[in-house]
Amino acid sequence: MSSPSEVRVLGVDPGLAATGYAVVAGGRDGFVVLQAGTIRTRADTPLPERLGEIHDRLQRAVAEFDPHSVAVEEVFLAQNAPSAMATAEVIGIVKLLARGRELRAYPPRAVKKRICGNGSAPKEQMLAMVRALVGGKGAEAWSDHAGDAVALALCALFEGGL
Amino acid sequence: MSSPSEVRVLGVDPGLAATGYAVVAGGRDGFVVLQAGTIRTRADTPLPERLGEIHDRLQRAVAEFDPHSVAVEEVFLAQNAPSAMATAEVIGIVKLLARGRELRAYPPRAVKKRICGNGSAPKEQMLAMVRALVGGKGAEAWSDHAGDAVALALCALFEGGL
Repeated sequence: MSSPSEVRVLGVDPGLAATGYAVVAGGRDGFVVLQAGTIRTRADTPLPERLGEIHDRLQRAVAEFDPHSVAVEEVFLAQNAPSAMATAEVIGIVKLLARGRELRAYPPRAVKKRICGNGSAPKEQMLAMVRALVGGKGAEAWSDHAGDAVALALCALFEGGL
Repeated sequence: MSSPSEVRVLGVDPGLAATGYAVVAGGRDGFVVLQAGTIRTRADTPLPERLGEIHDRLQRAVAEFDPHSVAVEEVFLAQNAPSAMATAEVIGIVKLLARGRELRAYPPRAVKKRICGNGSAPKEQMLAMVRALVGGKGAEAWSDHAGDAVALALCALFEGGL
């Protein structure tokens, strides 16, 4: 599936109710999104099972695409502390899955700034920009979360060293 | 190893540098600590590998003792936000390992109150009290973290329903 010079990154926008993920490959011919999706879990499901669903779906993507690097959005302390803690629990699982790979973590503002040129860019602008950069088949169906995951993977690819 | 009426709880005091854990069995003959220890990870090890070590050692305890329940200390927002976020990442891994089991989460003050009768009890008092309640072979070697893990498991056992 991959040419020798291709680099693959798994981007993850972590969240307990909705986690966006995307595997993006970068090579001589530019960037290609190999897979992108949103993992949604139900509030009435026990917490270990919700985390388990997120773990298993991400693990499947890791097994299928063997990314060199994992790029995850960091949460810094938000207005909403309990929600930030729940997101940090998901981040722990993402980082666990980066074992044996390079891990990069980005604050949300850094991603927006890198992709849109504006650290306060609204969601719609991010999604439109990401679609313009690497959209293709299926891109119109991406959620905000999947779009953020693509953006995270692109940040890691842009940074080079990959 | 276990009598039919025995209930086993895995208690976990989560932390990136040091995670305490203990498997405690409760039954007709009182409480017995089946295993207790401290998982220490080095600051110069990459984060995914540190989380991986914690995951693997806890997973081994789960596989060996098949606990009915997992009791973990919750972090609420501390003075030190970055450290709270790092601990929350470990908590996510603990909760993931509770899949198919009952999960209980306790704030630190509730554990101290339940075990020592004082929500502000110092570490030494907690450890002394836990040793007095269920100490046995090896109890003198428990770290504060292992002692907290025993205390968490006892909280879950005391609460009944188990």
